[in-house]
Amino acid sequence: MKVFEKFRLAIKKSDSLVCVGLDTDIKKIPQFLLKEKNPMLAFNKRIIDATSDIVSAYKLNSAFYESQGLAGIETLMETRKCIPSDVIAICDAKRGDIGNTSKMYAKSAFEIMGFDILTVNPYLGTDAVAPFLEYEDKGVFILCLTSNPGAYDFEIYGKEPIFKRVASFANEWNKKYGNCGLVVGATMSDFLSDIKGIAPELPWLVPGVGAQGGSVEDVIKYGGENLVINSSRNIIYASSEENFAEKAREEALKLKDEINRHRKNI
Amino acid sequence: MKVFEKFRLAIKKSDSLVCVGLDTDIKKIPQFLLKEKNPMLAFNKRIIDATSDIVSAYKLNSAFYESQGLAGIETLMETRKCIPSDVIAICDAKRGDIGNTSKMYAKSAFEIMGFDILTVNPYLGTDAVAPFLEYEDKGVFILCLTSNPGAYDFEIYGKEPIFKRVASFANEWNKKYGNCGLVVGATMSDFLSDIKGIAPELPWLVPGVGAQGGSVEDVIKYGGENLVINSSRNIIYASSEENFAEKAREEALKLKDEINRHRKNI
Repeated sequence: MKVFEKFRLAIKKSDSLVCVGLDTDIKKIPQFLLKEKNPMLAFNKRIIDATSDIVSAYKLNSAFYESQGLAGIETLMETRKCIPSDVIAICDAKRGDIGNTSKMYAKSAFEIMGFDILTVNPYLGTDAVAPFLEYEDKGVFILCLTSNPGAYDFEIYGKEPIFKRVASFANEWNKKYGNCGLVVGATMSDFLSDIKGIAPELPWLVPGVGAQGGSVEDVIKYGGENLVINSSRNIIYASSEENFAEKAREEALKLKDEINRHRKNI
Repeated sequence: MKVFEKFRLAIKKSDSLVCVGLDTDIKKIPQFLLKEKNPMLAFNKRIIDATSDIVSAYKLNSAFYESQGLAGIETLMETRKCIPSDVIAICDAKRGDIGNTSKMYAKSAFEIMGFDILTVNPYLGTDAVAPFLEYEDKGVFILCLTSNPGAYDFEIYGKEPIFKRVASFANEWNKKYGNCGLVVGATMSDFLSDIKGIAPELPWLVPGVGAQGGSVEDVIKYGGENLVINSSRNIIYASSEENFAEKAREEALKLKDEINRHRKNI
């Protein structure tokens, strides 16, 4: 199955556009888990078990695992295996390099680790993105317009801002296998309709709600329903008590319901 | 010691601007090494032992190791330890994300793996680069203008091309700790003097000679001597026979001598 078909089925089945970001930080997980053999994995498993019926995707932030050395990367791989097969597993690693190197990153994310979708940085251009697209049953979310203040430094700068050009290129890249989406920050309300206009069919991965202050209403208004909205810290660190996973579920449900209220207005 | 002081000392001691790229591919190393316990590590060790007196840096391409799973990443870490302390160890991983995530990538490259310098992708802007720069005794090479055809898609595009703006920002980022350099492709002769004009003090990491056809003469003419020129495949795969490391040394020496002929003309 094409990955963005699986993506739409996951949304339909869960009736949810929520993506839970597993930005798992050993310093922030409940302290009582530190007695576990692998505290990060134990934390992730319980979060996944408590939420997998009400979300359409999980996004694993590779940096948080890489920062824990080999054991952390093993935890990344083990966590991926805990994600049910009908929920989308996104590796957020923002890779991208010249062709023969991107090929190796693609092998790592898709073959070695078995992720469905990888986030890809477009700075180096078409030949840097191509090897990822060659996995026709996998997918990429291309960084188009990110949610952070630095987006104004390069992405949005100038009369012909690069994020629009990236959206336009991604629209072309998508034509071969339909496996290309965009990362579009929820904080960027002013530009959401531009992106939708340039690449109307492309699915979005939307960071920036919650801690970063992005508007769910605007995302749904301009982006529609072919997208997932990521929330990390607000969900996974909802509580540091024994019931942290149940509290994470409550937060995920709140976000799901908030999103769905706006979906009714489309 | 500041890392770019170490960089200049490494150049002076070896009288060489050569950086050897350890893009080590299990499929391309000499077949007789496959009987070793860790063929990639055995290969890297012999290349390093045969060349470390005539080069100023090694660049490890993270993707090639990541594509081999956990064992590959362990090989990356072990290889880094084989690089003598007076030679620069560059991790070419092109990382970059929002601040709290870049912090984790910085920890991985600088603390966990102990690299001197990391390549960083600037697409997300200042706050994405800042956590790397906070390691004042480590350094970054910011992707400015890459050597591949895709550089024309976004980096060079438009009246105010992004690569010039990246050079200008990097020039500012460098002011706090002097730990910021640029990746500048050798294939981009037409733009080298622009970059030097915008950021005259910043060291360069120059890919694109050899297989990609970049001009050593132009790099030295416009870039000067505060740089290293990377060569990967031409050096490390010079031979697949028992004497592969000696042949790699011969190729590294050829490149060193070619570069030094042009340095005399500065």
